[in-house]
Order: sequence, then structure tokens, then C-alpha cells
Amino acid sequence: MEIYLFAKNLIQDAGAFIRERMTENYNIDSKSNRNDLVTDVDRETETFIYNRIGEKFKDHQIIGEEGHGFDIDDMKGVTWVVDPIDGTLNFVHQHENFAISIGIFIDGEPYAGLILDVMKGDLYHARHGEGAYINDTQLTDIKDTELKSSLVSTNSNWLVKDGIKKPFIQIVKDARSVRSYGSAALEIANVAKGTSSAALFYRLHSWDFAGGMIIVSELGGLTTTLLGEEMRILETNSILTGNKKIHSELVQYFKDDDEFIENHARFHGLD
Amino acid sequence: MEIYLFAKNLIQDAGAFIRERMTENYNIDSKSNRNDLVTDVDRETETFIYNRIGEKFKDHQIIGEEGHGFDIDDMKGVTWVVDPIDGTLNFVHQHENFAISIGIFIDGEPYAGLILDVMKGDLYHARHGEGAYINDTQLTDIKDTELKSSLVSTNSNWLVKDGIKKPFIQIVKDARSVRSYGSAALEIANVAKGTSSAALFYRLHSWDFAGGMIIVSELGGLTTTLLGEEMRILETNSILTGNKKIHSELVQYFKDDDEFIENHARFHGLD
Repeated sequence: MEIYLFAKNLIQDAGAFIRERMTENYNIDSKSNRNDLVTDVDRETETFIYNRIGEKFKDHQIIGEEGHGFDIDDMKGVTWVVDPIDGTLNFVHQHENFAISIGIFIDGEPYAGLILDVMKGDLYHARHGEGAYINDTQLTDIKDTELKSSLVSTNSNWLVKDGIKKPFIQIVKDARSVRSYGSAALEIANVAKGTSSAALFYRLHSWDFAGGMIIVSELGGLTTTLLGEEMRILETNSILTGNKKIHSELVQYFKDDDEFIENHARFHGLD
Repeated sequence: MEIYLFAKNLIQDAGAFIRERMTENYNIDSKSNRNDLVTDVDRETETFIYNRIGEKFKDHQIIGEEGHGFDIDDMKGVTWVVDPIDGTLNFVHQHENFAISIGIFIDGEPYAGLILDVMKGDLYHARHGEGAYINDTQLTDIKDTELKSSLVSTNSNWLVKDGIKKPFIQIVKDARSVRSYGSAALEIANVAKGTSSAALFYRLHSWDFAGGMIIVSELGGLTTTLLGEEMRILETNSILTGNKKIHSELVQYFKDDDEFIENHARFHGLD
């Protein structure tokens, strides 16, 4: 239990660090493209988390969005997968609707997942086999739903991207309604909480989904790639997370589309 | 000032009514299609608001989403335009992220706008010429932004609808990022608050936008149809609301598309 309790304290302290730090000036830079932003606060928060783990557990591995552990190529021992700010665009433009996400694995097996909605103050957390919680309230198992009577989350970029858009478009037409919140971690947390039935994205990094997939799994939900394959923690993936019924329904949209399968294999290096 | 103060008290009381009522059982029905839901709580809240206005101001007109004032065909005197629950799907599935929206007009001229985020407790309100507020904090004028560095809100249905989707798709490609929250009133409130730069929808009723457009206008923002025409309060409209710079940029996407113009005229009866 020691690591789990430590992680819960750490994510709350990191949240407090962000709330304090964001009242001061910070620089905003772009990374892979002009809409992929990173701020001093992202970097400093990752260092804050990195240092705290390193002081306590000298032999733990840490993979972070802002550069820590980029050279890690195995999951031996304890591995922390950390996104210091998931939803950096929301952080910059809205000053809310962003999260800290942490997934912890022991020898590659899920150990614990934590997502903190930093401004709302809600902590989603689960230790494998011990149930999932929002703050001190235990979450109930995820209920099966059908797409036609479900809310689902995605990013509208995938609805307009040639070569992969067709199944996403059909899902929008068949769903009850679609939401886009701009933080994958919080959108996966919504699946855990039951306010959304599924979240699907063409491309996420492990730090975007590691915490959330452990929480969803603890509640009986399923997380795979859009084609139903097992998630790889050390690589980018497509992702489909939701209750088992809608998951099986949604994965078929992608499996039935040869053009999608071809582009997905090329992009994610699965062929 | 009397009507404005009365309206602020009324919307808070209606919010309290919803929060209390939603802890009990309620029926959910569908209206125009299987995804257009209405609940007992929508209807009862509209009646709550209708009765309270009627007791105080016997000669005021009231147009409500759930049937009150459907036969009103002029804007003489004082007209209240009321959505008791904007974002009914969120109400049903999420138990949050929905709003009460009220717009008040005197002889057709904007008098006051109010939007209550019922579960968050934030009240956005403006009296024409007197500034706009979130709770007791005055909002600052909306800043000009460019699409390429802006978050904008829309509904993904418009990205997949033949005949009108092209400009929406291009906007997704050109924007920094797109959000879909499922409550037009709250998405317009975000424009007022500055956490979103624009909100655009192909079809809204007056009760969805009346409160918001008055608040945005008070902060120097602009609200028109997607083709830049003046909003008609007694009809359904397309809507584009945002700061003046992004508004002028966005309206051009729609004006440049002949197929869109033709379908828009047919659908909205503007030809």
C-alpha cells in the first residue's frame, strides 16, 4: 500500500503546486506543431513529481510527457507513467479542465491509476484489485450501454482526417451525442464515473491513458486500441475505452474499414 | 432594475429547484427524435419559472422551450425567453454541465441575459449597458483572437451532415482546437468568460441563445447567423458568436460556400 498512498499524496501536492504556479507568469512554447503546446508549468510540475519519486524510491522508473524516461524500453520493476498536465490547451486557454495523470506498473502489470482534475479538485484513483474511487467515494462498476443511447468522447480532428475518418464519422451519426473536452485523461475519467460511455482517440501517448485505463479496468471496463488490440504502454496507441458492450460495438466500426486498418497499421507501426 | 434583480433571484431559485428535484425519480421522453430528450424536470422547471414571472408581472410574455408561449409572434412589451434546462442530455447522462438560460427583451431590444451553470453554481449575467458578470465578478471585454490560435465550440453533428459540413470541417482543420460540451448556453457563456473564442451551431432555438447573446454583446462580442445576418429571436437560427475578429474570420468560411448558403436558406427559410 505504501506506493499507492505515496502516489495519492504526491498527486495532490503536485496539484497544489500547479494551482500556485499558474498565478505567476510562465512561458508557452510549441512542440511537434503549433497547436501542441508546453508551458514552464508542465515542465516544472513533471520535475516536481520526478524529484519526489526519486527521493523516496531510488530504483523506480519514471516516464513523463516532458522528457523524463524517454529512453526507458522495458517495464521491469516499478514504472511510473506521468502526465504533469493533460489538456495543456485547456490549461492555457481556460485555466481549468486539465488533469495530472499517473499510472503505476509493477513488472509491466497495472498497479495503480490516478487522475486529478486539478481545478475541480476531484481525484480519481484505483489500486488494482481494490476498487476505484472518486475522492473518498467508491465508484460502481461501469454499466453496459448501446452506442445509440450513449454519450461518447472523441477529438474532432479525427472526424476530418482523410484515410481514417470514416468510422469516426459513422460513430458520430449513430451515437446519441458526442463530446470533446480537450483532456483525454478527464475523458477517460468520465468513462470511469459513468458520465460518458466510451472515449476513443486515434493517437495517444502512454502518459495520456496509463492512469485512466487502470481505473476503468478496475470498474469492469475495457481499454484496447481502436482495433481491439492490447495497449502497449511504451508506445503511442489508438485507444478505445468503455463498457464491454459499447466497446465491442465500437471496435467493429474500425475492424470493418480496410482503409482505416491500413492507415492505422502504417501510423502505429503495427504491420 | 427591478426586473433584473427579480430575474437573478428567480434563476437561482429555479437552480435550487432542479438540484432538489433531480434527487427524486423523473420520467424521460423523447421529442423530435430519439436523441432530443425532455424530462419531467425540464417541464416542471419551466412551469416554476413561468408561474413566478406571472405572479409578479402579469403582462410579461414568456417563451419557453417546453411549450410556453409557442404562439407568441411579436416582441412588444417585456418578453422572457427561457430554457429551463439547456443541455438535457448532459442533465440525464452526467447530472452536470447543464444550464438555465434566460434572455429578457423590452420591445424587442435586449434588456438582460442570465445563464446559470446549475451544478457548478456559476451565474453569468448582464444588464444591457451595465456590464456583464460571473457571480459578483465583472467580466472584462472579450479580446480579439485569430482562429489559428483559438479554441472554438461546435457540435460534431454539423461536421458529418452532408450539404453543410464543408465549412465546419475546414474550421476544425484551421482552429487551434475544437470543443463540444453539449450545452449551447454554457458554450456561449464560455465565450463571455474568455475560455473559448467562438461558438458556432447550425441550428439553435431562441431559448438556447437569447441569454448568451445579450451577455456576449455586453462584452463587445458579436452574435449573428453563420452568414452574418442579424439573429431573429422568434425563430430558429444558425449562430456564430465570438469576438469581433474571429467572428469576421469565421463568417467568411460560410459565405464562401454556395452549397452551404443554399441549404442554409432552405433550412432556415431565409430565401
